Order: sequence, then structure tokens, then C-alpha cells
Amino acid sequence: MLTRVRSAVANFMGGIMAGSSGSDPANSSELPVRFPYGRPEFLGLSQDEIECSADHIARPILILKETKRLPWSTGYAEVINAGKSTHNEDQASCEVIFVKKKPGIHATPSKNSTKRRSSLPNGEGMQVKESPEADGITLSYWALFDGHAGAGAAVVASKLLQHHIVDQLQGIVEILKNSAVLPPTCLGEEPETANNNRTLTRAASLRGAAGAPGSPSTPQTRFFTEKKIPHECLVIGAIENAFREMDLQIEQERSMYNISGGCTALIIVYLLGKLYVANAGDSRAIIIRNGEIIPMSSEFTPETERQRLQYLAFMQPHLLGNEFTHLEFPRRIQRKEIGKRMLFRDFNMTGWAYKTIEDDDLKFPLIYGEGKKMGPEALLCTRASLAFCLGISLELNRSLSSGSCDGNHWSNPGAWRSRFEGP
Amino acid sequence: MLTRVRSAVANFMGGIMAGSSGSDPANSSELPVRFPYGRPEFLGLSQDEIECSADHIARPILILKETKRLPWSTGYAEVINAGKSTHNEDQASCEVIFVKKKPGIHATPSKNSTKRRSSLPNGEGMQVKESPEADGITLSYWALFDGHAGAGAAVVASKLLQHHIVDQLQGIVEILKNSAVLPPTCLGEEPETANNNRTLTRAASLRGAAGAPGSPSTPQTRFFTEKKIPHECLVIGAIENAFREMDLQIEQERSMYNISGGCTALIIVYLLGKLYVANAGDSRAIIIRNGEIIPMSSEFTPETERQRLQYLAFMQPHLLGNEFTHLEFPRRIQRKEIGKRMLFRDFNMTGWAYKTIEDDDLKFPLIYGEGKKMGPEALLCTRASLAFCLGISLELNRSLSSGSCDGNHWSNPGAWRSRFEGP
Repeated sequence: MLTRVRSAVANFMGGIMAGSSGSDPANSSELPVRFPYGRPEFLGLSQDEIECSADHIARPILILKETKRLPWSTGYAEVINAGKSTHNEDQASCEVIFVKKKPGIHATPSKNSTKRRSSLPNGEGMQVKESPEADGITLSYWALFDGHAGAGAAVVASKLLQHHIVDQLQGIVEILKNSAVLPPTCLGEEPETANNNRTLTRAASLRGAAGAPGSPSTPQTRFFTEKKIPHECLVIGAIENAFREMDLQIEQERSMYNISGGCTALIIVYLLGKLYVANAGDSRAIIIRNGEIIPMSSEFTPETERQRLQYLAFMQPHLLGNEFTHLEFPRRIQRKEIGKRMLFRDFNMTGWAYKTIEDDDLKFPLIYGEGKKMGPEALLCTRASLAFCLGISLELNRSLSSGSCDGNHWSNPGAWRSRFEGP
Repeated sequence: MLTRVRSAVANFMGGIMAGSSGSDPANSSELPVRFPYGRPEFLGLSQDEIECSADHIARPILILKETKRLPWSTGYAEVINAGKSTHNEDQASCEVIFVKKKPGIHATPSKNSTKRRSSLPNGEGMQVKESPEADGITLSYWALFDGHAGAGAAVVASKLLQHHIVDQLQGIVEILKNSAVLPPTCLGEEPETANNNRTLTRAASLRGAAGAPGSPSTPQTRFFTEKKIPHECLVIGAIENAFREMDLQIEQERSMYNISGGCTALIIVYLLGKLYVANAGDSRAIIIRNGEIIPMSSEFTPETERQRLQYLAFMQPHLLGNEFTHLEFPRRIQRKEIGKRMLFRDFNMTGWAYKTIEDDDLKFPLIYGEGKKMGPEALLCTRASLAFCLGISLELNRSLSSGSCDGNHWSNPGAWRSRFEGP
């Protein structure tokens, strides 16, 4: 039964993806890899060392050769898992990047306007302070990718996600640097002072809101109900869109390259005095201070994603193929139980109810299991196969007061860990 | 412009609903009303008094004539709004109900197995204690419905929602009463003692999980990964499904009856020592103890519902007709701004980014405004057009430890307040 399900999942994933998910080596092995496999660049390992790191008996712990190699006194440690996969499928990257503003914020995006200061190979550029240069912003970037069913997606994400973030930020460099003035709703409008509560007549604002064509000579039309968007929300939007672009790129490039498996993404961006934490999938960022653990992100679990995925499957049942059901049951159902009444829950329920079992309910459930049921301490120990440790005590207060949209101080873009995976 | 949008909303709602939304009186007025308009039954008002209560100048505050009329020393007060509508479109109900168990939990549901002890007209049945009777459960029920665009939906919900809850509970009366034993996953299985951690061999559980046909004489097959569902989750599931059934019934009966408008729903069910609070829409339940305000539910706002509705519209664009866009902008866009870059956010974003304005972006936004931006204190004052006040100090500890599914101690079923309404 489990083999049948695994095969169904593999066939199904193969059908969704233009290329291959790595579960189907017959197809993907004919395609070139997007990037060669390796360990994180900042470790500076030789090919021999990379091979030794995959020793499942010795399980060497890999750490940085030079403690000054990464910014913020960043520590790093990784170890191969205890036999789950031949290679370590997880990846990491860390860079200090200078984002150069576009020639003009109204201009078409230019692909080569970014100057990148790599942290590699010898650490040059690591001591870059925030540049007073008028034409850009320096950001620090840390990223972990927990790969599964192959290292391909994690390798690609570790090489390219930072490019997508830079692409998204380039158009708003000037706006972000000008912290005294709120981001303009419409580019080209006269900006508004951040601390200035406008006084407007209601009549004037309604004139604008009603969309009446104003005189072309009217310099600006103000609106009574106009949301004020703080700078931090633009950074969050940029990171969210970068995650989506990365997801799309991997999906598209699977037709040309062998990009195996899926991965989580957990990134930290330090920009203009604030830390931004974004994650997709079941990795988690924490801060430890005086023995206290402060969660900085919430990992995705079958519980947190259940209703979203059940709803998607309910709306787009063809995505389930003929192999899955969007309903959840407390356990697998046996054929002999058809006709009996069993507990279930649908996308609109947090509670449970009984339904009469039908043939369709024997299909494999889209949502299965509960994920890891552990407190942060246990997570810290068991997921330490790959971890950054930042020297951020000085920055903590700033990070905890970081920008907020809708009351969240971090964002949870969609995961590009494969959406329809089996147990 | 606003008139055009209002007309579009009305036409559009008329198209979705088989009957009428009340915005289109030309059609609906030909149909009979489902229930005659009135004020809550427990107020015991005469027709004259009902007419007086709608006096927008005097605005009399209606309270209970007899303080012992409702259970739990429940207080109640309402007042007509300051001119927004001719009649008070809000409704309320309060009952003590005895839910009789079905003849057998395997039997087909019987529609007339419920004995209802109405709180009306003279308060008899109000002093009903939880009955030791073996064949049922007594529950207390309070409900508020904030109607809009007509009182029809609120009146129907105030008359019928409790029936749907009883319908859902009937099949599980015996299970709920047997608190020492966890609800069986499959009816007909031998139940499991609530505090008994089963010891199972892994082999036996895998045999079950693999779905191998067991010998018919095997009394029970246990599963290694079987979720344990507590009793409270069955009550939550019953209330969630009752909300959905009520929603469906109103939708279906609009082809036969004139059921105008929409409404929120905020209900409290006291059952077997626990309070359950469920809400749909922008009403809120609170407990006030020693001046401290304890929120017992979270109202829906354009902010809390934004991503769900944007996602639905993205997946099913035909629901938007040709009048709405699923994108959010900080304010309405003017035609002359086409081609400029403006802040927006899509369903996958909590942050904001810039996009070039196209013709489609001039459509009316599906999500508009932010809802009420007030703390609980302000809400308490401004939404007091209709409110219950329960004497629940003795029950408070029990209520706060009430059942939990997924960590929520209340449930938020989908609103049947019209989904695609204008500003």
C-alpha cells in the first residue's frame, strides 16, 4: 500500500512539474543539473572535504574555518543526517549585498544595476558597514534551505533567492532611504511627510474618491480613505514577491534542468536597522537570550496548512488526480469500513463530525500526520543538522520592533516544498 | 460612481442568489416573507410596542419585562440605530433546549426526536437544570444577529439556527455524555478509555495501517498514527456544520421566499459544563470581569478576511463578474493614473509593492476599507445597539478552559454576511 501511494505521488508530481521531481530519475537524469552539488560556499571546502562530510559513520561537524568570514560574528555548523539520504540535501548561504538604485524609479527595471559584494572566497567585503553612498543600500542576508527528496531545489534556492530579493528591492531603494517621508501611493505623486497628519476637507477627499476627472492642472488629489503604507511593508512585499519568483523559476527551469526535490526556505534580511525574517516550510528561526527562546518565525506544519490546502483541493479537485481525497480522517480507512460512520473534517471545520464512509474516502488523504510535536528546545536539538548562530545581541531590540503589516513582524510566503507529497 | 458601484453590487448579488438580496425589491416583493418581521420573542412585545421601538427620535431602549425570563440571569438591551434603516435589522434569540438522543447512533436521523423547551412565552422551562435523564442533553443557547441591507436573513437565522445545531448534536448525544471514553473514530468500534494509553505492537499497528484485509473475526484493528479527538471537538464540528447548513438553507430558500439582506451570527452554547462561542462576521463576544475585558471571539474584518477572499476571487475569477478586481490598492484609482506605478497587494502578500496601473485595476476592489479600528472598550459602547449580558461569573473558569481544536477555544465558521458587498 505504501509503495503504491509513493508511486502515485511520484507519477502525480511528475505530471504537475514540467521536468521531474527527482522521484523519477529516468527522465531527470537526461537533463543537465542547474548547479553542481556542493556544500555552502562560505565553508570553502575542497571536493575531497565535501566527500568526507557525507560520511554517515563519522558524521563530522562542519564549521567555519575562519571566524571572521561571515558578518555579525555569524557562526555556522552542519552535520550529515544519520542515513536518511546519501548527501546532505540542506543548503545555506550568507552574503552582504549592496543594492544599487535604479537610474530612476520610473524607469524600466535594469537587470545589471546590482553590484554584489560576495562574502566569498576570502571574506572580502565582509566588513562592509552600511554605506553612506547615496545610490544604494547595503543588506545582510542569511538563508537556510532544508532539502528533501533530492538536493536540487535547495542548491538552486541557495544560489538564486538573493538575486530575486535584490531585483524586488532595486525599484524602491530611494523610497526606503527616505525614511522621513512615507512611501508614495502612486509614483510621481508628491510624497507625504511621515509624521504629518494631513488635514483635508471631506468634500475635497470625496471629490477624489468619486473618481471625478480632476483638472489636469490640479497638482495632487487627496483621498479620504487612503491607507498609509510604512516603509517596512515595502520590504516585506519585496521579500514575499522574491519567494514567489523563486518558486516560479524553479518550476519553469525543471523543463530544462534536473532540479531534484523540494526545500524549505528560512531567510533573514538585515536592512536599514531592521531584521526581517521570512520562511516557507517547516524550518524555524529563534533568538536565544539569557536562556530564553524567542521564536522569530512559525514553521508550516500539516496543521497550519491544512485548511488552506484542503480548500485549494476542494476548489480545484483536478489537482488531486484520482489518488487523493481532500477530507481528513483520524487514521487511514480500510475497505471493509465502507458504510460505517467515521470522524472526518473538511476545509471549513476546526472541529470534527461523523460521515458515512464511501469508496472515495479510501483515497490517500491530502493532509496526513501532524508534523513534529515538539517545543522549541527539542527542535533546537533535533533540527541542528544545519544552523546559523548570529551575534545579534546588540541588534535584538531593533529586530523585535521591526516593521509590521497586519500585526505580523514576519511574513510567511507560500512554501515551494512540494505541495502534494505523501507521508 | 458610487451609485454605479452600488447598482453593480446589487445586480451581481441578484445574479448569485436564486432569489433576491433585498437590493432588488422588484423581484423579492412578489415572494412571501419567510417569517414576519418582529423583535426578539423573549421581549414579548405587542405589535404597537414593536412600532414604537422603531422611533428614530425617541430611540427607546428595550429591555426585558421580567428579569427571570431568560436563563443565567441574562440581561438584554437594544435600541434602534440613529436613522440608518427604517426598522432595527438586528435580531436575537435565547433558549434552553433539550437535545434528545437518536434511537440508536447507527440509525438514520429522525427529524422529530427533539423536544424543545422554549423560553417563551412565560419563562417556563427557564429553570431547567442539566437533566440527569439518560436520553438527552440540555443546552443553553444565546444568539445575536447583526443584520444589514434588510432584516430577512437575521430573522430567519434567529428562528432556525438553533434547530440546525440540535440536528447536528442529536447523533452524538450518547458519545458526548460518556465523557470517560474518547469518541470512537468509527462508530461501532469498541470505544477507548479516555485516560488509557494503549500499548500496541508496532507490527500490529502497521498491519492495520497498511490496509491489509483483516480476518472478519478480528474484533478491532488499531492504528499507529490515529488522532485522538476529544469530545469538545465534536461540539465545535457540530456548530460549524450548523452554521454551514443555515447558510445553505438561506441561499436555497431565497428562490421561494423574500429573505432580504445578510447578517452576522454570534452564538454562545453552554453544554456539559463548557461554553462554546462561535461567530461569523463583525460581531464580538466579551467577558467583563473586575473591569477587565476578556475577548471570547474575534470578529471578521476586511483585514482578517482579505487574503481568503482575494484567493477565492483569484481562483474563481468569474465570481467577480466584470465589476471587481481582487487586487487591493491603498485607495481608489483614477483613470488618468493608468500607466503610473501604484502600491498594491495580492492574495499572497502581507506587504506591499508597486505595479503599473492597467485598465482592469480601475474596477471596484473586492476588499475595501479596514473595518472598525477600535479597542474593545470603544466597541462595547458603539456596538451596543443590541447586547446580551450574562451572569456567568460562576462559570468563567470553566468557560476559559473550554474545549480546544487546533489550539482555538472558539470556532469561526464562514460568514453568511454577503461576501461580495460594496462599501
